[in-house]
Amino acid sequence: MRILVVGATGTLGKAVVDRLKDKHEIIKAARSGGDVTVDMTSTESIAAMYEAVGKVDAVVVTAGSAKFLPLTAMTPDDNQVAIDGKLKGQINIVLLGLDYVNDGGSFTLVSGILMDDPIPQGASAAMANGAIRAFVKSAAIEMPRGIRINTVSPNVLEESWNDYADYFAGFVPVPASKAAAAYQKSIEGKQTGQCYEVY
Amino acid sequence: MRILVVGATGTLGKAVVDRLKDKHEIIKAARSGGDVTVDMTSTESIAAMYEAVGKVDAVVVTAGSAKFLPLTAMTPDDNQVAIDGKLKGQINIVLLGLDYVNDGGSFTLVSGILMDDPIPQGASAAMANGAIRAFVKSAAIEMPRGIRINTVSPNVLEESWNDYADYFAGFVPVPASKAAAAYQKSIEGKQTGQCYEVY
Repeated sequence: MRILVVGATGTLGKAVVDRLKDKHEIIKAARSGGDVTVDMTSTESIAAMYEAVGKVDAVVVTAGSAKFLPLTAMTPDDNQVAIDGKLKGQINIVLLGLDYVNDGGSFTLVSGILMDDPIPQGASAAMANGAIRAFVKSAAIEMPRGIRINTVSPNVLEESWNDYADYFAGFVPVPASKAAAAYQKSIEGKQTGQCYEVY
Repeated sequence: MRILVVGATGTLGKAVVDRLKDKHEIIKAARSGGDVTVDMTSTESIAAMYEAVGKVDAVVVTAGSAKFLPLTAMTPDDNQVAIDGKLKGQINIVLLGLDYVNDGGSFTLVSGILMDDPIPQGASAAMANGAIRAFVKSAAIEMPRGIRINTVSPNVLEESWNDYADYFAGFVPVPASKAAAAYQKSIEGKQTGQCYEVY
């Protein structure tokens, strides 16, 4: 398959690329350092990415920003980071990408454990995660031409543990390779509308 | 209690007001026809609403717009209606309202059945619903001064059935009064972080 990986240079993205690269043709998209440049917060940039890449069999998103800060300090502008990045960024990659995905292809988005197992400072990320899970479940029943859509919801990653351990008290991190396996299941399997919890 | 009901002139809002008005002081907020005017899509308007209303014991939201249309026809701008209305509108009512809610008070937001039981044309509404449920679950653990936060997730309402029956094939609508009971549970009870499904 020809697979577009958005966020390919990140921790999760690299693990997904590693898992898929021997069997598939991978096009890496990222803010910098990929085969194609994309800013998920810009519809123009997403459209230009698809224009440059052309038809694919799968679109994978492994990136999406959100701001972590205490709820009592959070402003609408703080929350906008997750709305523009992880939430709208991913949904616009679907809405603008439908015509670029071949019949029977797939989208796989990223949500995350914080929607189910909240931590202090995580409400904005949780919001984006919950939005993605619900959008995927609903969009799956309307996908044209046999296109499927799923989301992977990872726990905090072992590779990021040194940076985030203080936020995730009592969490048991998972290796990025385990989350990457869920992406493979979404891409090479036949399920749709699923949220693969890698907790 | 002193209770601010945002969306008080709508079908659900009226049912909530009816259920609460004998025991509580109700302040009705709406785009028009309420005690105070508010446009949920504007942070300035939300801030002005709180400034006019002052301190309350509970903030209730029963409104939030979203656009219904086929996924294959949906543009980022179409999806923005739900983001600005039901999603950001409600979250900004929390973020900008925290200082106006008395100790031990509550927020009660509205989500909806489409995040769990999707229909064609409902992906944008589902997205907003899922965002609200996840935000509420996460925000609940960070609320200051004993303030609680819940969401009510109603099925399609009997009162709206004539307008929406064609969209909700096989759904069994619920009376708005049943959804209003869940609001009462959120306001007068002690639970927090809950999603009350009125399905």
